[in-house]
Amino acid sequence: MALMESEELDNDLLPYDIGKTSPDILRDIFRTDAYQGTTAGMSDGYTQGNLAVMPESYALDFSRFCQRNPKSCPIVGVSDTGNPLMFTLGQNIDIRTDIPSYNVYRDGSLDCTIPNIRDLWNTDSVAFVIGCSFSFEEALLQGGVPLRHQELGRIVPMYETNINNIKSGPFGGSMVVSMRPMSVADSIRASAITARFPHTHGMPVHIGAPEEIGIKDISQPDWGEPTEFCDNEVPVFWACGVTPQNAIREAGIPLVVTHTPGSMLITDCRSSEV
Amino acid sequence: MALMESEELDNDLLPYDIGKTSPDILRDIFRTDAYQGTTAGMSDGYTQGNLAVMPESYALDFSRFCQRNPKSCPIVGVSDTGNPLMFTLGQNIDIRTDIPSYNVYRDGSLDCTIPNIRDLWNTDSVAFVIGCSFSFEEALLQGGVPLRHQELGRIVPMYETNINNIKSGPFGGSMVVSMRPMSVADSIRASAITARFPHTHGMPVHIGAPEEIGIKDISQPDWGEPTEFCDNEVPVFWACGVTPQNAIREAGIPLVVTHTPGSMLITDCRSSEV
Repeated sequence: MALMESEELDNDLLPYDIGKTSPDILRDIFRTDAYQGTTAGMSDGYTQGNLAVMPESYALDFSRFCQRNPKSCPIVGVSDTGNPLMFTLGQNIDIRTDIPSYNVYRDGSLDCTIPNIRDLWNTDSVAFVIGCSFSFEEALLQGGVPLRHQELGRIVPMYETNINNIKSGPFGGSMVVSMRPMSVADSIRASAITARFPHTHGMPVHIGAPEEIGIKDISQPDWGEPTEFCDNEVPVFWACGVTPQNAIREAGIPLVVTHTPGSMLITDCRSSEV
Repeated sequence: MALMESEELDNDLLPYDIGKTSPDILRDIFRTDAYQGTTAGMSDGYTQGNLAVMPESYALDFSRFCQRNPKSCPIVGVSDTGNPLMFTLGQNIDIRTDIPSYNVYRDGSLDCTIPNIRDLWNTDSVAFVIGCSFSFEEALLQGGVPLRHQELGRIVPMYETNINNIKSGPFGGSMVVSMRPMSVADSIRASAITARFPHTHGMPVHIGAPEEIGIKDISQPDWGEPTEFCDNEVPVFWACGVTPQNAIREAGIPLVVTHTPGSMLITDCRSSEV
């Protein structure tokens, strides 16, 4: 977590030990727009989630899309239409302000990155919070499975695959996966550990030969940064939260808001509960 | 399963060994309207589900209701609006015909019980299939946990509780639970076994003192039939699929169709996959 600590030191608005700071204290800081960086390493043991805000007319189709593709799109919370309080995910969570940074997409293209969406949220908005891999990475580390990208201070490599999503209305596309190199022994333990986290992508979708899931060059990820393999290590692939983000962008919705990558909602739900 | 075998013998339209018969063969029989009884004991190892068909205008709220109350309302499949083929749950499943018997509710009251809903399904209909306890009961029996209500040939006792559901739009009410008496040792094993089945109600919601969850008289279930306790047995309570059915009835939707209790959709999904 060396990267996170150095970022933390750059910003004296954050408490010293972000891993032990409770979610509500951090959300209160984010609500002031003072911090717009990553939430990695914050509030150990609490579920973090990706955000997607869309007009209600798309919400039923998106809800079905997530139900049909639960490994890449595990819903952990949905707002009532027009109500920005995510009351099922914690006390006093205002989805318009409590994430450090938001990406605004218009007609599928990134329009701007902003610290709150007070002016964009309206009576027709529905917010979806989707599980992310931060929780299962914490469980892997606690289980003694090392994570190369964290050791190298890099973003996990992510790849487009040939695994088609099950469609729902305008939402389709294919699964995006994240990849972590590890020994075969660790890949077995990692499978068992992550199987207990169905709301944060669950078990791996593939282990070994990248070409079997349509990945041509493992050294060239489509998102994130390349990583390094040691001798006798295999690539282990998990469904990734970029999958629903791609599906949403490709659906051609006039206005969608997501979190800025790495800058998540920290909920009050313990990872072991969800 | 003595009760099921006797029912089977009464109906020579069914294959001799219903437990080993594949779901598609049984659904083909149901499609002819020839059999309108229970699906208990059929297609061992395959997920069975409860049905709720409603107009699209209620579907987003109901979808959120299920997401917020996953123990009592685990969604295993949702149709596209107006498309009766449940393509995520198997080959050629027509939700209008492939369940033995349907209950039609108008304005919250049971209007009629019919063998198919060809005339009621329309371009605005959305079908939800929700996990039921048949799958986890099979796992309990295989794990060596005896089930008293089955031994007695009775319907499992069910009770209204004081555990409030998390609301969504017109859907609310309180959790309904089913109860199985067992030794403390078996209750521990049953908890571990059912924890592996989150899509069929998962772990117990309560063990022991019924009054703690608002049940005044354990000998007087609100649905199903009373059961019997042996010495030193405790009541073990699971969230029950009657919960969403009550919530739907109380929501005052003009027209809703459900399965007739006990007469479920048999999907092509293995219980261990879901």
